[in-house]
Amino acid sequence: MNVMNTRYQIPDTRYHKEMIKNDLFLRALKGETVERPPVWLMRQAGRYLPEFIALRDQYDFFTRCQTPELASEITVQPIRRYGMDAAILFSDILVVPQAMDIEVIMKENTGPFIPKPIRSQKDVDAIQIPDVNIELGYVMEAIKMTKEMLNDDIPLIGFAGSPWTILCYVVQGQGSKSYDIAKGFCFEHPAAAHMLLQKITDTTIAYLKAKVAAGVNAVQVFDSWGGMLSPVDYQEFSWKYINQIIEALKDDAPVIAFGKGCWFALEEMSKSNASALGVDWTITPKMARQLTGGNITLQGNFDPSRLLSPPAVIKKMVTEMIDEFGKDKLVANLGHGILPNIPLDNAKAFVDAVKEYQVKN
Amino acid sequence: MNVMNTRYQIPDTRYHKEMIKNDLFLRALKGETVERPPVWLMRQAGRYLPEFIALRDQYDFFTRCQTPELASEITVQPIRRYGMDAAILFSDILVVPQAMDIEVIMKENTGPFIPKPIRSQKDVDAIQIPDVNIELGYVMEAIKMTKEMLNDDIPLIGFAGSPWTILCYVVQGQGSKSYDIAKGFCFEHPAAAHMLLQKITDTTIAYLKAKVAAGVNAVQVFDSWGGMLSPVDYQEFSWKYINQIIEALKDDAPVIAFGKGCWFALEEMSKSNASALGVDWTITPKMARQLTGGNITLQGNFDPSRLLSPPAVIKKMVTEMIDEFGKDKLVANLGHGILPNIPLDNAKAFVDAVKEYQVKN
Repeated sequence: MNVMNTRYQIPDTRYHKEMIKNDLFLRALKGETVERPPVWLMRQAGRYLPEFIALRDQYDFFTRCQTPELASEITVQPIRRYGMDAAILFSDILVVPQAMDIEVIMKENTGPFIPKPIRSQKDVDAIQIPDVNIELGYVMEAIKMTKEMLNDDIPLIGFAGSPWTILCYVVQGQGSKSYDIAKGFCFEHPAAAHMLLQKITDTTIAYLKAKVAAGVNAVQVFDSWGGMLSPVDYQEFSWKYINQIIEALKDDAPVIAFGKGCWFALEEMSKSNASALGVDWTITPKMARQLTGGNITLQGNFDPSRLLSPPAVIKKMVTEMIDEFGKDKLVANLGHGILPNIPLDNAKAFVDAVKEYQVKN
Repeated sequence: MNVMNTRYQIPDTRYHKEMIKNDLFLRALKGETVERPPVWLMRQAGRYLPEFIALRDQYDFFTRCQTPELASEITVQPIRRYGMDAAILFSDILVVPQAMDIEVIMKENTGPFIPKPIRSQKDVDAIQIPDVNIELGYVMEAIKMTKEMLNDDIPLIGFAGSPWTILCYVVQGQGSKSYDIAKGFCFEHPAAAHMLLQKITDTTIAYLKAKVAAGVNAVQVFDSWGGMLSPVDYQEFSWKYINQIIEALKDDAPVIAFGKGCWFALEEMSKSNASALGVDWTITPKMARQLTGGNITLQGNFDPSRLLSPPAVIKKMVTEMIDEFGKDKLVANLGHGILPNIPLDNAKAFVDAVKEYQVKN
């Protein structure tokens, strides 16, 4: 295959209707041969950017999510500064339970807080599946506004939390090291837990389909707390529902499934219809390729804390990472979200190292 | 080998001088064939026990650690109630930095707090290696007192934190989800980090040797935060120092190395002189055996939250766990510490299920 011509091939009619000028990211998701891996950073629209902080100091968390002008501006901030190969719509995974009429308060320093956590079958029974175009219409507006700002230069990613991760928050009531209350709920009341997971799944499928209809070019499902479960429980309480989402979305847009700490499920995940799997930094690229059989695109997996190394060290380590994964079927990224205390030059070193990547002779 | 006779064999002269009546645990650590696996629970002397709560309400955390009468009483509380096959001396991994003259405050609900965290080469230079028999003499007293109470019925385990895990606390200053400050310190100032790790290692070796001299029959190194590191960084900042401890202690007592989230290092760890490796619940027993080559004793790995299942479910799952590991070269345990909210009957179900384990025909 002629590498330089792949971007001009007939677009896959299943999805991405428009022609994106830099479609490196979408080609990598299709597993095509590329000149270098595409790059973006999880949480790239975030607190390490002074221009983000300036808006954060003016508007509270959900105002930023719910105001399309702010969400779209925040989304393109990192692109202006660093020129990543994909943008990801600024939002939060907890807008989904909010839309399901579960109150979520975002405390700026301690994270999310759910005043009335879900703890019983009765609580689960009371939850209604919302009309996402009404309850989350502000997200669709933000997507349209962002697409105009991006001018088809690069693709836009939309995201949602995995049903299990959403359950963790709405049952536990806040962030936790062990999510013991959430897990206890599943183990003591499995029927109620499964009903809750199904309601979240149905809402998430409708939400992601609406996002694709509004213009996102790919979707990512974040399973932040899947790694809290044993391999057997992960299949039952998390993967089963993520896979429903993949199956429902696969003809609409490429789906990236990211499970933090879910190395143990990679083999199973690689057999799904996901276009790519996100991996965290606790697995070597070699092992990740081995467990996934080498045929699916992987996304990751630089340790976010390693961006505290000097820029020259970062560049060397990024190059080694790509060498070890191989440049194809790879989306260069961090293994989790970028930390607030990362110097701007260090984030730049990461993006530049990927863009400057040259295959060794 | 005659299974029933192994407990009467000539004792290994390298260690455990006295004859322990129930030496199932020590035999499992030697990899001998046993009638059933031994059982104990990480944090078995802990907050799920009402008799522990009664003492906690009277004495603060470090008073409990530093008063031999209290530490020994707390150590034997779970043995009286459930009859585990090993006791573990009640203490805390942070007594080591305390002995190194780093102030540690234990906040009853939020965990440890270090008012003056280590953040520079100068801070590291100022740290002295203590005389553990003076600074931690209360631990040695507690060991002697506990040994008398146990009357050689079962072995006593002593423990320490891994140097990396201690670094995490003393640099970060408190518990953290990412230990980003601690990791950043290592990546920005590797020379200072290695000097700090070596000072902690030297202190820990002296401490564990003193504990063995005082009477413990085995030692466990807890690497609670090793799983925060990439496989490459784990070798450099954690395993290298744990292995120094194993090499220094191997002729004194059996060493168990437990690394939470360190599945990626199991193959390397299995080549060490550790007598056993602890594994958490995010790895299947089959995969754990595969990565460790099947020749080293493993300890684990029941999900602590799974003790919230009904007792009958617990018993079934424990039996399945032992079936999958195989009864030999196994110490049945949780994959991390027992949670404070576990019902007493559920903890009992776990211990009883191991004791009642029968090999299927």
